[in-house]
Amino acid sequence: MTEKHVYSFNDGDGKNKQLLGGKGANLCEMTQIGINVPPGFVITTKACLDYLDQDALPDGLMDAVKHEIEQLEAATGKTFGRGRDPLLVSVRSGSAMSMPGMMDTILNLGLNDETLAGLIEQTGDERFAYDAYRRFIQLFGKVAFGIADEHFDEYFEDVKVTAGVKADIGLTAEHLKEISEHFLAVVKREAGRDFPQDVMEQLKLAVEAVFRSWMGKRAVDYRREFNITPDMANGTAVNVCTMVFGNKGDDCATGVGFTRNPGTGENEMFGEYLTNAQGEDVVAGIRTPKPLQSLEDEMPDQYEQLVALRNTLESHYQEVQDYEFTIEKGTLYCLQTRNGKMNATAMVKTSVDMFAEELITRDQALLRIDPELLEQLLHPRLDPDKITKPLATGLPASPGAASGKCVFDADLAEKLGNLGEKVILVREETRPEDIHGFFAAEGILTSRGGKTSHAAVVARGMGKPCVAGAEGIEVDTALRQAQVGDYVIHEGDVITLDGATGVVYLGEIPTIAADFSDDLRTLLGWADDTAHLKVMANADTPAAAKQALDYGAMGIGLCRTERMFNASERLPIVIDMILADTTEERQAALDRLLPIQRADFIELFTVMAPNPVTVRLLDPPMHEFLPTEQDLLEQIDNLRLYRDVVRGRMAALTTFDTHPELPKPFDELSEELVNDALIKKERMLKKVRELREVNPMLGHRGVRLGIAYPEIYAMQIESILEAAVECSKKGISVQPEIMIPQVITSQELAAVKRSIDALTEKLEKEVGEKLKFKFGTMIETVRACTRAGQLAENVEFFSFGTNDLTQAAFSFSREDAENKFLPMYNDSGILQDNPFEVLDTMGVGQLIKMAVDNGRKARENLKIGICGEQGGHPESIRFCHHAGLNYVSCSGPRVPIARLAAAHAQLLDGAFKSAHN
Amino acid sequence: MTEKHVYSFNDGDGKNKQLLGGKGANLCEMTQIGINVPPGFVITTKACLDYLDQDALPDGLMDAVKHEIEQLEAATGKTFGRGRDPLLVSVRSGSAMSMPGMMDTILNLGLNDETLAGLIEQTGDERFAYDAYRRFIQLFGKVAFGIADEHFDEYFEDVKVTAGVKADIGLTAEHLKEISEHFLAVVKREAGRDFPQDVMEQLKLAVEAVFRSWMGKRAVDYRREFNITPDMANGTAVNVCTMVFGNKGDDCATGVGFTRNPGTGENEMFGEYLTNAQGEDVVAGIRTPKPLQSLEDEMPDQYEQLVALRNTLESHYQEVQDYEFTIEKGTLYCLQTRNGKMNATAMVKTSVDMFAEELITRDQALLRIDPELLEQLLHPRLDPDKITKPLATGLPASPGAASGKCVFDADLAEKLGNLGEKVILVREETRPEDIHGFFAAEGILTSRGGKTSHAAVVARGMGKPCVAGAEGIEVDTALRQAQVGDYVIHEGDVITLDGATGVVYLGEIPTIAADFSDDLRTLLGWADDTAHLKVMANADTPAAAKQALDYGAMGIGLCRTERMFNASERLPIVIDMILADTTEERQAALDRLLPIQRADFIELFTVMAPNPVTVRLLDPPMHEFLPTEQDLLEQIDNLRLYRDVVRGRMAALTTFDTHPELPKPFDELSEELVNDALIKKERMLKKVRELREVNPMLGHRGVRLGIAYPEIYAMQIESILEAAVECSKKGISVQPEIMIPQVITSQELAAVKRSIDALTEKLEKEVGEKLKFKFGTMIETVRACTRAGQLAENVEFFSFGTNDLTQAAFSFSREDAENKFLPMYNDSGILQDNPFEVLDTMGVGQLIKMAVDNGRKARENLKIGICGEQGGHPESIRFCHHAGLNYVSCSGPRVPIARLAAAHAQLLDGAFKSAHN
Repeated sequence: MTEKHVYSFNDGDGKNKQLLGGKGANLCEMTQIGINVPPGFVITTKACLDYLDQDALPDGLMDAVKHEIEQLEAATGKTFGRGRDPLLVSVRSGSAMSMPGMMDTILNLGLNDETLAGLIEQTGDERFAYDAYRRFIQLFGKVAFGIADEHFDEYFEDVKVTAGVKADIGLTAEHLKEISEHFLAVVKREAGRDFPQDVMEQLKLAVEAVFRSWMGKRAVDYRREFNITPDMANGTAVNVCTMVFGNKGDDCATGVGFTRNPGTGENEMFGEYLTNAQGEDVVAGIRTPKPLQSLEDEMPDQYEQLVALRNTLESHYQEVQDYEFTIEKGTLYCLQTRNGKMNATAMVKTSVDMFAEELITRDQALLRIDPELLEQLLHPRLDPDKITKPLATGLPASPGAASGKCVFDADLAEKLGNLGEKVILVREETRPEDIHGFFAAEGILTSRGGKTSHAAVVARGMGKPCVAGAEGIEVDTALRQAQVGDYVIHEGDVITLDGATGVVYLGEIPTIAADFSDDLRTLLGWADDTAHLKVMANADTPAAAKQALDYGAMGIGLCRTERMFNASERLPIVIDMILADTTEERQAALDRLLPIQRADFIELFTVMAPNPVTVRLLDPPMHEFLPTEQDLLEQIDNLRLYRDVVRGRMAALTTFDTHPELPKPFDELSEELVNDALIKKERMLKKVRELREVNPMLGHRGVRLGIAYPEIYAMQIESILEAAVECSKKGISVQPEIMIPQVITSQELAAVKRSIDALTEKLEKEVGEKLKFKFGTMIETVRACTRAGQLAENVEFFSFGTNDLTQAAFSFSREDAENKFLPMYNDSGILQDNPFEVLDTMGVGQLIKMAVDNGRKARENLKIGICGEQGGHPESIRFCHHAGLNYVSCSGPRVPIARLAAAHAQLLDGAFKSAHN
Repeated sequence: MTEKHVYSFNDGDGKNKQLLGGKGANLCEMTQIGINVPPGFVITTKACLDYLDQDALPDGLMDAVKHEIEQLEAATGKTFGRGRDPLLVSVRSGSAMSMPGMMDTILNLGLNDETLAGLIEQTGDERFAYDAYRRFIQLFGKVAFGIADEHFDEYFEDVKVTAGVKADIGLTAEHLKEISEHFLAVVKREAGRDFPQDVMEQLKLAVEAVFRSWMGKRAVDYRREFNITPDMANGTAVNVCTMVFGNKGDDCATGVGFTRNPGTGENEMFGEYLTNAQGEDVVAGIRTPKPLQSLEDEMPDQYEQLVALRNTLESHYQEVQDYEFTIEKGTLYCLQTRNGKMNATAMVKTSVDMFAEELITRDQALLRIDPELLEQLLHPRLDPDKITKPLATGLPASPGAASGKCVFDADLAEKLGNLGEKVILVREETRPEDIHGFFAAEGILTSRGGKTSHAAVVARGMGKPCVAGAEGIEVDTALRQAQVGDYVIHEGDVITLDGATGVVYLGEIPTIAADFSDDLRTLLGWADDTAHLKVMANADTPAAAKQALDYGAMGIGLCRTERMFNASERLPIVIDMILADTTEERQAALDRLLPIQRADFIELFTVMAPNPVTVRLLDPPMHEFLPTEQDLLEQIDNLRLYRDVVRGRMAALTTFDTHPELPKPFDELSEELVNDALIKKERMLKKVRELREVNPMLGHRGVRLGIAYPEIYAMQIESILEAAVECSKKGISVQPEIMIPQVITSQELAAVKRSIDALTEKLEKEVGEKLKFKFGTMIETVRACTRAGQLAENVEFFSFGTNDLTQAAFSFSREDAENKFLPMYNDSGILQDNPFEVLDTMGVGQLIKMAVDNGRKARENLKIGICGEQGGHPESIRFCHHAGLNYVSCSGPRVPIARLAAAHAQLLDGAFKSAHN
């Protein structure tokens, strides 16, 4: 028995898209649920592969096709290749996945000299018949013989010019006849053979052409580009379908529809149609289509059928459908349907509505929305209709859009911001001392640094748009300007940033506000009920914590205490701490920091109560709090010059008044003050040089600092515990969690724990009750993963720092990799994704699994989460779910996405397991 | 039944050191094999722990002691605490491991007023008796009551002064009697009680004092310092032994001996003795002891007994023994024995000899030598008798010792070296362009950088001594001097380096040459026969390869091709390659490098034939081949100044002639030449800035370079394969292995492999035969460990780069860690070892095991080795053996150590497995 390569729409399996292609399966499905689809059949993708393999159609294929054609003849009463009511068919490709780049549709196949005559006789419409014929000859010539369109189009245009008509519609039957005849001659000339009059030969050539198009350059490129692997789509099917005509008169029409409004999600008839027209006329824009509602008046019966069709489609597919239809002589045919593509607002609304209508389950309502789609709803975005030409492009470092005046330093940004001006902070790179500028700015633009640069990370934390590393922009702070090629942006010029795309525009582009609707709240509430993973936020300030709460965060998974050090009134104290030569000096600075940190924590705990707040002790190397060597050298030079001025050796220069590095106002300064500043800067320079590291990422940071300077961690621990006591006194329930960064061995944890125990004992004596808090560790070194069992004996929770872990696993410094070789690795297909954005489950994921297994073996109820940037990425969240984590923590604006993704992870359990085991 | 806490020497288990302590077990053992040991007994370590736990001696302990004392009385005919022939005993502590810091020995316990009289009566020697008594009172007072020595010593000195004698020997019986009486008064005053006259009380107090000393500060510190854990030694035993006296007349003597000469290993009587003396007199240095040989004349019978004793000890212990003996009234007693500590030469000779004498097996001959001990034999070392005061101390970065004139730049070092001068290259840090200075220098000294700095790694590779990071030395190249505190070293001053200790000396200190004896060759031959692991060498030049062969390397496990790029005539070509703006320019530079590299490989393959040579393709980031930004800025400044001079704007300054940055001779220069140099330096500066990386260790290096610039790897591959063909034509059998660094995914390997396949095909067509070579990868990223299965499908061998792997696992940059926090971590006990020297089996080891398991699962016969620095470390080698590796590769001079360690690993199989599973 030979393999079955051809299936009638009546018996093809509507679920088997691999074999029948998406389009073919849908046509079978619709036919079998009683929708009026013109009769037809599908030639399988398997036949395509066999053809490509053997360079010949499989044995018996054309016999089976012939048999199906006979069935069509029987069903329609038409005859193929002969007679007065000739059977015409469309031939379309269709693989398992939607894929542009394969052949276009061939319409009206089955026309030849004989059937043309029949068609004319039958319809009495010579113009209609010749129009159909010339279209068929051109398409067929192109697809089957590879004849370029221009060979046809030139002549066609000539005829129009000669005839003095502008639109095709102006051409008469005579014109079209002449054109058809000429087209046959074109085929003969270009293909070196006659246009086939044998309709079975036409069909055979068309099928072969479709099959060949699977290996066409555009299709192959497309599959590579979008990583469509053979298990996703392998070969294309061919759909052969009886032609129906919307252009046979005023009782004919053709149109497209959505079962709901794809812009708003409203449950209403939505779509357009044209009477007496072919499908392509609707999109060609020559005639203006009418809204579907008009059909109710024009053809009330057919409108009723269309409403019924729409309802059948939605209730069968349980999804909003995007469909095509044709009305031929009063009969409604559905030609195609597929899931409707909608914007985020519409997706959310339709999910909530369809659940209310009992059309879909809650699980379906959640699953049909790609979590990433929600991004649209969480940030203002540029009005797509108002976008202008880009000025420059950088990395999309923090989503959202904002416009404002360019400002080149943080002080001015703060000043203007306080005056109510909208500003964009523009810097070569930002540093911790710029933090007050971030607070004041609408957005941040830098010309250097990657997605993990200071600017990017801080902006994401604050939920402000940021474009980083826009290398085309040369920032000249001294001149108060930036240059892009020849164009100069002056301070005060308005620019617009699109943090979602990394594009920078000149002038203001209006934005569309974020839209956290009631529907979205409803949907995410379902997600929370469904998900196993909790979603926490990374937030360092009370403001960020409040925002995260709005987004539905269930606590703070990562509060980076060093961010608290950066505020402009605190940094000088931190610098004093770093410059300290003795423990006593350092302690004095810490004593000044303690009440400040305590106040921070009180506020943070109060905002988040009663949710947990995980505080990470100091992590970055000390030199990050100091200016760069370069900056210090410049500042020292400036100060020396300034001292000369103060000493009266040089005339005071007016420019000094505005120079950012110099104290103001000028008049109040004494030589002594300048000298003091100079001495301090020189001490800083010495320290900066002392702290210089070859690979700071792998240097003296994290718990290594805590061990070297136990008094720093002690201050932080004390301020956390005292804040908890304060809150507790006010009746506020708090759950502080103390987390240690960069741990490699349990000995480090034990050392910090001793300090905690001593402080706890002291405080408990004072307040007369037990303090409640958790002690935990970041898992962000590889060694921590290998020693997780031992670490777990010392802590109550783990939190994976997947940014550092990825750096260590790949031996890629993120900053260096993203600016240099990572794009090359992605382009050449060596790496699929950027592992700093999407968790590398194959490598880093193995380490995580190892740590989870060993950690839980040692402590069954160990709480485990992730607080790296990947914690907000749906695929990574899915991995975390399956690795058995308890929570993910991500930046506030990613929280809604993570909530939905966590629900997906739970719902897709089975699918994931079978794919990964 | 109560626990047995006391064992007679006759029935204690000589193998149970945990229970009886090392000394006690040995006394039992000797007694039971018939050696004449004075009768005695041991109180167990368990009794010690019970005492410390309950703060009281275990029930029944003193009864058991009393019983043993009665046995001693029966055996010796003496009586304890009474009579004319009183039983005196020594009381000594002794734990399972030798450990200073616990109590000293108490001698003559059992003396009181009554037994003193008996002793006088029995011996008729009042002086002897009082001398014994005053010694006992002082020691007992100190140990049991904690009375400081000065309370006794002051009076003793006063008596000597009053008596007008200098040595103790000058004191009369009367003096000693007076002293004894006074000492009794001291005890009463200081202890607040009478000196105990009850001898059983004396014994009880002594036992308790010994037990308490286990928790004394010095003992506790010692155990912490040397990581002696409870499973190694827990509690101290007490040895109670009948006193014998070597000072009872001329038929008495006391001495110490080695069963063989510990300096040379010669099989001869070796030791010293004194007649009519106590043990302490032999070491006190007042009388000059005689060599044992003299005893043959003086006491021929006893000498014969001593020879018999020595033979019995050696044949029983199968090890060279270090023993103590006393002859009392013509009877020889052995008081103690232990394994003899010997230098490396002696250890090797005795191993070979004792095997020849059939005293020990070959396995024993190998196992008794600590592999690290061989280090002594492989490098010249400073004559310990000639060592002077250290000038400064740095890190012991490469072993060996050397003297020479200080030279502050590589050019001068080369020049003087070529003139036959011995020079030491002294730099702040070295860089690749200094390489010619390394070749010329006897040793290298740097004031910055750690054990993995350029200087250290290159020096180790060349087997030259290096002291790195001697921070006390300030090098001022411009002034041609270095300063240590106030002391100034001028260029040309002679200094000496000890690379084994990191100490720098002023002037020349004579060295003792390395000693690769026939015995050592024999021993290492046995090691090779025994070991499962092969030992390869890391060698980058034919010279280093020759040296490695001498040391017994079985091939080259790591040839770092970049080292070949550094030679002074090549570096300019490499720099051209780096500066190239186009692929064509780069190819032009590579075309010039190809024949040079090919010639290198031909030489290397020829030297090593027929052993395998593993060549690693280019690894370091490109900027390592360029000068630093700082240097370039200075050079550019200099050149500009110089251009002004050439232009005649400034008078020529004579100092320029000797300035190292400027071309010479001055007269031949034109402005054009200076301009060309300037342009080149400016291009270099631009490139240096372009290549700057935040974390170069995690930057654009290794295979990432090979992917970015495939033409570089292609050149290297071509030169390797062509060299193999050349050798093959000459009938030289070669086994080249091509190794890829920094791999994280099999896609990288596949990309390089395509290039190899293309070149192989081309070459094979040319020569008409198959090329034989292996393709492999470094495993030095963590991700490579997690993806080892996939990598193994693409390669024939793995080589672990444990330096990088350790950096990645710990997130420690070696350079930063060793200079900053690693010493702190070691000091505070957070980390036991430096993981860059000793493989971290718990963390990095887990990754290695993972990679071996997954790799072998994918490819059963996968060859696996290690080429990180830890590959030469015995403990790490043991780990590698058990992890199933096939080879280790280390620097040439570590090869002998590794060969012995590999044999140990094989022989100690069982012990390791039980400890680690």
